[in-house]
Amino acid sequence: MLEKYLKRRESKKSVLFAGLDSDFEKIDGDVLDFNKKIIDETSDIVCGYKLNIAFYEKMGHKGIEILEKTIEYIKQDESIPIILDAKRSDIGNTAAAYAYYYFNVLKVDSLTVNPLMGFDTMLPYLEYQNAHLFALALTTNKGAYDFEIPEKLYLKITKMMNEKNKEYKNKIGIVVGATNSEFIDEIVENSEDMLFLIPGIGAQQGNVEKLFRNLKGYKNIVINVSRGIIFNENPREKAKEYNELISKYYNF
Amino acid sequence: MLEKYLKRRESKKSVLFAGLDSDFEKIDGDVLDFNKKIIDETSDIVCGYKLNIAFYEKMGHKGIEILEKTIEYIKQDESIPIILDAKRSDIGNTAAAYAYYYFNVLKVDSLTVNPLMGFDTMLPYLEYQNAHLFALALTTNKGAYDFEIPEKLYLKITKMMNEKNKEYKNKIGIVVGATNSEFIDEIVENSEDMLFLIPGIGAQQGNVEKLFRNLKGYKNIVINVSRGIIFNENPREKAKEYNELISKYYNF
Repeated sequence: MLEKYLKRRESKKSVLFAGLDSDFEKIDGDVLDFNKKIIDETSDIVCGYKLNIAFYEKMGHKGIEILEKTIEYIKQDESIPIILDAKRSDIGNTAAAYAYYYFNVLKVDSLTVNPLMGFDTMLPYLEYQNAHLFALALTTNKGAYDFEIPEKLYLKITKMMNEKNKEYKNKIGIVVGATNSEFIDEIVENSEDMLFLIPGIGAQQGNVEKLFRNLKGYKNIVINVSRGIIFNENPREKAKEYNELISKYYNF
Repeated sequence: MLEKYLKRRESKKSVLFAGLDSDFEKIDGDVLDFNKKIIDETSDIVCGYKLNIAFYEKMGHKGIEILEKTIEYIKQDESIPIILDAKRSDIGNTAAAYAYYYFNVLKVDSLTVNPLMGFDTMLPYLEYQNAHLFALALTTNKGAYDFEIPEKLYLKITKMMNEKNKEYKNKIGIVVGATNSEFIDEIVENSEDMLFLIPGIGAQQGNVEKLFRNLKGYKNIVINVSRGIIFNENPREKAKEYNELISKYYNF
């Protein structure tokens, strides 16, 4: 993931990922066609794509087939990194089943995981040479104040993942939500090169200027915008706008 | 879920759920046929079934179709409660997509969720009248010592879910792993009637006697055994054995 990301960031001057959260209830027509159109319109300007599996599972097995075909479609250009946003968490033999599908069948570049159950639940994924994981550290929702923030769990997770990223040679990153960005400077202080996946800009209205102030020049970031791009009348123009907005603060 | 569980517990004198963790790599032949055979052989003696979605996702969209058909097959007898073990966690609009599939399409009786991101991530499921959630509190793996146990997060989760179960009228329970059972008495002390889903007996070798000692007569429990039943040569006999073993300690 990291290598692909760095190359693509350099060539496209973009850290923007378009989130294909393709909710069939918001789409008039075929979801696969919808995705292909978004990809056709944006693949030369975004850094990569993130797919949240929930919106495909919502359509049952036919939705999972659309997910598979969408990933295949993106993969026609092998330089484009793909993140599968699934926030998985399970013990060894079950995590191994998930890992098989994501890294041996779908062959995505990265997967989001929920680290509550501990680091051993991440090991079965890391056995795949091409695997990369983003562990949830700080999320964008109010519920972050239930467990993540009061216990400073986001910091404990950050520190552990930063160590593990060194041990597992750039195969680990963290999810850092933009809406609770007052905690980001502490996360940055405890992170070396590991990749941050940053949701919360766009429909979730995280403030871009405040985000970059707290990031203090941290370079290895992915900024994901889903609904803000794909459900806009002109996804290409919207993606360009986000690229330009980010370029004001990010020194490419 | 709770009502179905109580009726079935009474009629079958069983709190045993058979876990259909049907890993295709361990199965000679068609996975749906394998499941149907297990269900045919055990449905009159178990309390219910738990399906871990990872083993179906491992087979891609065809696996999800097998999951759908398996659930349909169990549902021929509407008295049997079905738990979907998915350990999901995501923010509002995404959780709503998951909820739609589980409680509006599959119509399972309960779903496991990972509560790290906070209680608001559980709300979209609870909007469905027939919904029930098991939140992970204490898991069976070594990684439970990373975050769940040192921060006493399992207890904080237990207390919150116990309160929410009262507020949401028996729609919430917790997952309490049998292998780390020295922490269970503290969980029991802070739980009223909410249902416990207890994995870790069977292949994971949790000690049944020690488990019941720590449960101190707590009644609303589901004991799940997956590999220990379904991959045995005689699943029916094995399920009966587990029922008998549990009956030594559980006062039906």
